[in-house]
Order: sequence, then structure tokens, then C-alpha cells
Amino acid sequence: MVIVYTGDGKGKTTAAVGLAVRAAGHGKKVIVIQFIKSPHRPYGEAKTLQQLGIDVHQTGVGFTWTKTPEEHREALQKGWELARKHIVSGRYDVVILDELNVALAITSFPIADVLPLGDVIHTLTDKPAHTHVVITGRGAKEDIIQLADLVTEMKEVKHYYKKGVHAIKGIDL
Amino acid sequence: MVIVYTGDGKGKTTAAVGLAVRAAGHGKKVIVIQFIKSPHRPYGEAKTLQQLGIDVHQTGVGFTWTKTPEEHREALQKGWELARKHIVSGRYDVVILDELNVALAITSFPIADVLPLGDVIHTLTDKPAHTHVVITGRGAKEDIIQLADLVTEMKEVKHYYKKGVHAIKGIDL
Repeated sequence: MVIVYTGDGKGKTTAAVGLAVRAAGHGKKVIVIQFIKSPHRPYGEAKTLQQLGIDVHQTGVGFTWTKTPEEHREALQKGWELARKHIVSGRYDVVILDELNVALAITSFPIADVLPLGDVIHTLTDKPAHTHVVITGRGAKEDIIQLADLVTEMKEVKHYYKKGVHAIKGIDL
Repeated sequence: MVIVYTGDGKGKTTAAVGLAVRAAGHGKKVIVIQFIKSPHRPYGEAKTLQQLGIDVHQTGVGFTWTKTPEEHREALQKGWELARKHIVSGRYDVVILDELNVALAITSFPIADVLPLGDVIHTLTDKPAHTHVVITGRGAKEDIIQLADLVTEMKEVKHYYKKGVHAIKGIDL
């Protein structure tokens, strides 16, 4: 199965993390590859997931302007190479590609067409049947939605950002 | 904060589980109270969450017709009493009320008005500020949405049920 959590609402990455925990609870082999690192996302869950025997890879250089566009591109492409390798290998029951949708959407100046969408589509279409892939991030491409088996849109109905409250440690971070 | 994950799409409980893992990763004290038990939901995550030091309580007698309506009612009410006690106590940083929306929606024959909505509203409104409450389940009541700080609707865009595939162990269960 290819499972997609997209939309502007909260809960996309957390849903993927919850799915990882559930799968690990059933003795499944799980890997999480995070495509977008951010100084605002220290990922309180990474350490915890590793404690559960879940492999976690953080890729991408994050949203920082101290890096060149080429460094961003290279980091994201390395992330995708890693993802492809682990999907194709059939070693994992669940491969979570966190924020891949966002990485795929980076096509504008100064970084154009960072990730090869065609290769992503091809890899997902031909993946081993027992390897389930979960893709998160807002703005899922139409091609990704087309090939996915399950797509949930997280819709923001109400958010405390609008009341002037920003990130809460242990909740958002 | 009161955080609600509702809607018909997948990812509500998994998002809450992911949030529990993230919070526990930050050393927060977390409890998960599951209001609806089902023979189709052995909760692969319960054991795993407990390994992370998260308290898990399963309440409700599940969707089974071997129990009387009174047994269902009693089990759900006991669940709510437990939830209220743990919210009011301030002992927890995060209290997850899994499928509370569904439990609150059970108002039709043969079980009428199982849970006291007024008491739920009151408890959530007056809760300790440092205790964040997460409520999941489709069909969130308007009163719950009104008082919540963050509401995400999980919208089903595409689902493999429609292709004749049902629950996948380690993914749905």
C-alpha cells in the first residue's frame, strides 16, 4: 500500500509516527526518513522511535539560509537515494517518507526540480508488495495521489496560531 | 490546549498516538484512555506505548452484542470518570481521549445519552492549563469544536476499502 497524509491541517507527521509505532508493536520492520529538517522541529520523537527499534534518518539541511541551494539539493537527493534503496530492497515492512510531498514541491528558483518525480512514481509503483510506504506533507502532487491506495487530507478547522499561540514543546515540536 | 482530530478519514488515532510518542520523547507525562474497544482493534500500539512509560487504559466493552446496553453504558461512564479524574488532577501533561467523540455521539436507542456532555465541556473548559487534552473520533460535537484550540478534520480522499482491501495488520490494526 501507498498511504498519503496531506493537507494544511496538523497531524500528518504525527499520524505517520503513530503508524510507525503501531507497526513496530506488531514486530514489523520500520524506517522513517525525514526529508525536511527544521530548527523548529527538534523531533522529540526520533530518539523515542529508535528506542522502539525503528530506524530514523534525518536528511535535508533544513530551512536555513546559511546553506547554498546546491547543498539543499544535494541533501534532498541523497535522502531520496536512501529512500529508494530501502524501498527497493524489501527489507522493511513500512517505509515512512516524512515531508516527501514538500520536498517534491520544491521546484521554484533557486532550487529547480530538486527530486526526480518520475523516479519517485516509478519506485512507488514497482515497490515490493509487502513494503508499505507512507508519505506525508502538504501539497501532495496529483501523480502521487493517483498512485496512492489511501489518501487522507488533514484539514485545518481551527488553530491556536490564530489566537497568537505558537509552537508548544512536546506537542508541536 | 484542547486538540481535536475528527472526520471520516484515517489517521485520527494514529495522530494522537504520534503526539503521545512525541510528548513522551520530551519527558512529558502522558496517558491514553481508549473509549471504544473493538475486536478488530487489538491495539498493537498499547504495549509499545507502555514500553515508553505512557499509561494506557482501555475502557468500554467494545462493539459486541454479547453485552447488554447497561454494560456498555457503565463501561463508558467508568471511562469518563477515569478521564475526568486524570484531567482534573493535573498529574499529566497530555491526556488522550481516544474515540471520545464516538462515545459522546452514542445517544440513540438502546443506549441514550451515555456520557454527560455538559460535564465533559465543563471539565475541558476548567482543566489545568498545563494539561493538554487530545480528543479523537469522527463526528465531533459542535460544543467540543467550539471549546477546542486546534481542530483537524481528517478527510478521506481515497481509500483501499473501495478496492476491496480491508484491514492490514500492523497498519490498520
